[in-house]
Amino acid sequence: MGGDIGPRITIPASLIALEKDPMLSLLLFGDSQQILPLLENTPYPIKERLTICHCSRTINNEHGISYALRHSKGTSMRLAIEAVQKGDAQGCLSGGNTAALMGLSKILLQPLQGIQRPALISVIPTVEGEKSVMLDLGANIDCDAENLYQFALMGAIFAENILNLVYPRVALLNIGSEDIKGHKSIRDAASLLEKDTALNYVGFIEGNFLLNGKADVIVSDGFAGNVALKTLEGAAKNVISLLKGKSKNSLLKPVFSWLLTHIFKDSYLRLKRINPDEYNGASLIGLTSVVVKSHGSANIEAFSYAIADAAFQVRQQIPNKILVGLEKYQ
Amino acid sequence: MGGDIGPRITIPASLIALEKDPMLSLLLFGDSQQILPLLENTPYPIKERLTICHCSRTINNEHGISYALRHSKGTSMRLAIEAVQKGDAQGCLSGGNTAALMGLSKILLQPLQGIQRPALISVIPTVEGEKSVMLDLGANIDCDAENLYQFALMGAIFAENILNLVYPRVALLNIGSEDIKGHKSIRDAASLLEKDTALNYVGFIEGNFLLNGKADVIVSDGFAGNVALKTLEGAAKNVISLLKGKSKNSLLKPVFSWLLTHIFKDSYLRLKRINPDEYNGASLIGLTSVVVKSHGSANIEAFSYAIADAAFQVRQQIPNKILVGLEKYQ
Repeated sequence: MGGDIGPRITIPASLIALEKDPMLSLLLFGDSQQILPLLENTPYPIKERLTICHCSRTINNEHGISYALRHSKGTSMRLAIEAVQKGDAQGCLSGGNTAALMGLSKILLQPLQGIQRPALISVIPTVEGEKSVMLDLGANIDCDAENLYQFALMGAIFAENILNLVYPRVALLNIGSEDIKGHKSIRDAASLLEKDTALNYVGFIEGNFLLNGKADVIVSDGFAGNVALKTLEGAAKNVISLLKGKSKNSLLKPVFSWLLTHIFKDSYLRLKRINPDEYNGASLIGLTSVVVKSHGSANIEAFSYAIADAAFQVRQQIPNKILVGLEKYQ
Repeated sequence: MGGDIGPRITIPASLIALEKDPMLSLLLFGDSQQILPLLENTPYPIKERLTICHCSRTINNEHGISYALRHSKGTSMRLAIEAVQKGDAQGCLSGGNTAALMGLSKILLQPLQGIQRPALISVIPTVEGEKSVMLDLGANIDCDAENLYQFALMGAIFAENILNLVYPRVALLNIGSEDIKGHKSIRDAASLLEKDTALNYVGFIEGNFLLNGKADVIVSDGFAGNVALKTLEGAAKNVISLLKGKSKNSLLKPVFSWLLTHIFKDSYLRLKRINPDEYNGASLIGLTSVVVKSHGSANIEAFSYAIADAAFQVRQQIPNKILVGLEKYQ
């Protein structure tokens, strides 16, 4: 288990998540020789809610995704998903390869009835301190109008339940606001969404308005969505590190931190809302169980947010609400 | 003429550009009744280098792009491009519809010999204070591998001449760094670029590294490129306005400005480099003449940067250098 860096990130993150959430239990799939030393000083009440499921194999992606899936038996990712399939766990979190996680989840956990393509969804912040959701973020590279329409439906249900919104505003990511812009699939999806009065479709949204709260649900194909989300994250991280950490005059750093947190608290708190660590967890929706994907390069804090996100979705029974919601909408 | 807002932006911007560049002359295509009042207090040495070419028609895009092109005679955009075609002007700048500007430029100014698809290119900043170029930013929605390969060639030549780089590093925008990721067109373009030793191809780049100076030339199709660039611009604008302007405590604003500019000068200067106003001009490359596209929503400062950018490209003879460069590479 463990994304790009492995147990050195995921184990401390697990301990933080367990400490913050006293009702949480975790099954850890990975190499116990790597995991155990990292648990040495863990107090018993935390350790008690941790189960190590030893496995030494990981998904190997170098021969392509279909090879990886065919040879996935006994890998940490597959065993974790199988634990959900068997009912040993209620949800799965992985920092591994997205395509492999998607492929295995679709095979083992099945898409919900009527869903053509499960999608990757994430909560993103707005500058006004609200939240939006965005999908697909990389699970489906090429999408037709019907796929985009289903993403809009799932996204609306997710936003209703996770963001607690009524009649969330749905927009399609495009490169202009005029009807004639963009791929045909997007224009056709717009027609489908306009016809569906159960959905609050508000039109096209461009990349520069993603953080401005103009829509609660932002829908796109997985390629453009992934590019947009990563670009947002990169821009936010760069600006924060320029302001906080990278000043050449290191004596001023504590002064700057103090000013940011005390005098300019309001601006800083707003800026902190765009800290991508808090928005690390992306979810595969449209499946029968909760599956959350962390960035492979997530740090400890970000990975612990993703664990908490998975637990929240399990408690909110998101897959079931999507199933019920789909029947209501269609 | 004039993008979304019109002469109230473009005329003051033109005056700033003329003031800064004593060798610049401008032809202004638009409604003289709107333009003249804005020039009332302009001193003679500036006014002398301004020619108003009156026209009342503008490109109307509501019936689709092909209708707009067929009915473009006598519009400000077409007349401006025709002035370049006739040799009355050496380059054209427009804040109007991108597809119309592209369509008219291709018809009237012609693509350079051997170029399948002219593309929209822009300079973007890096956090280290360097610059990269990125293309295509919206001129070509769907691109095959050969198109992407040509964008890489044109981008490399543009970067050599505008950024003064030797053997610029070329990367393809993708949603992962592994070979198996992304659209087939991107993977095929990667194969073409790997084979061409005249180009310094460095692999895939993801959205979160666009500002990190990992590549000098970032290549993508026009849809993903447009989404990425607008997302970058939106994120930068949001963070800057959160920090500078939107603090609820207005008494602190001058203090904050002072601190930013004096004590945290280094960080602030780096942050200012990501001010999208300075990077407003995008260029259509692959044509026989210089055509620059400003954002429709550009402010006065941003529009004046775009004018200066067009003048610089004319003086650098970019179209000719691309033509010579293409022969050298291929």
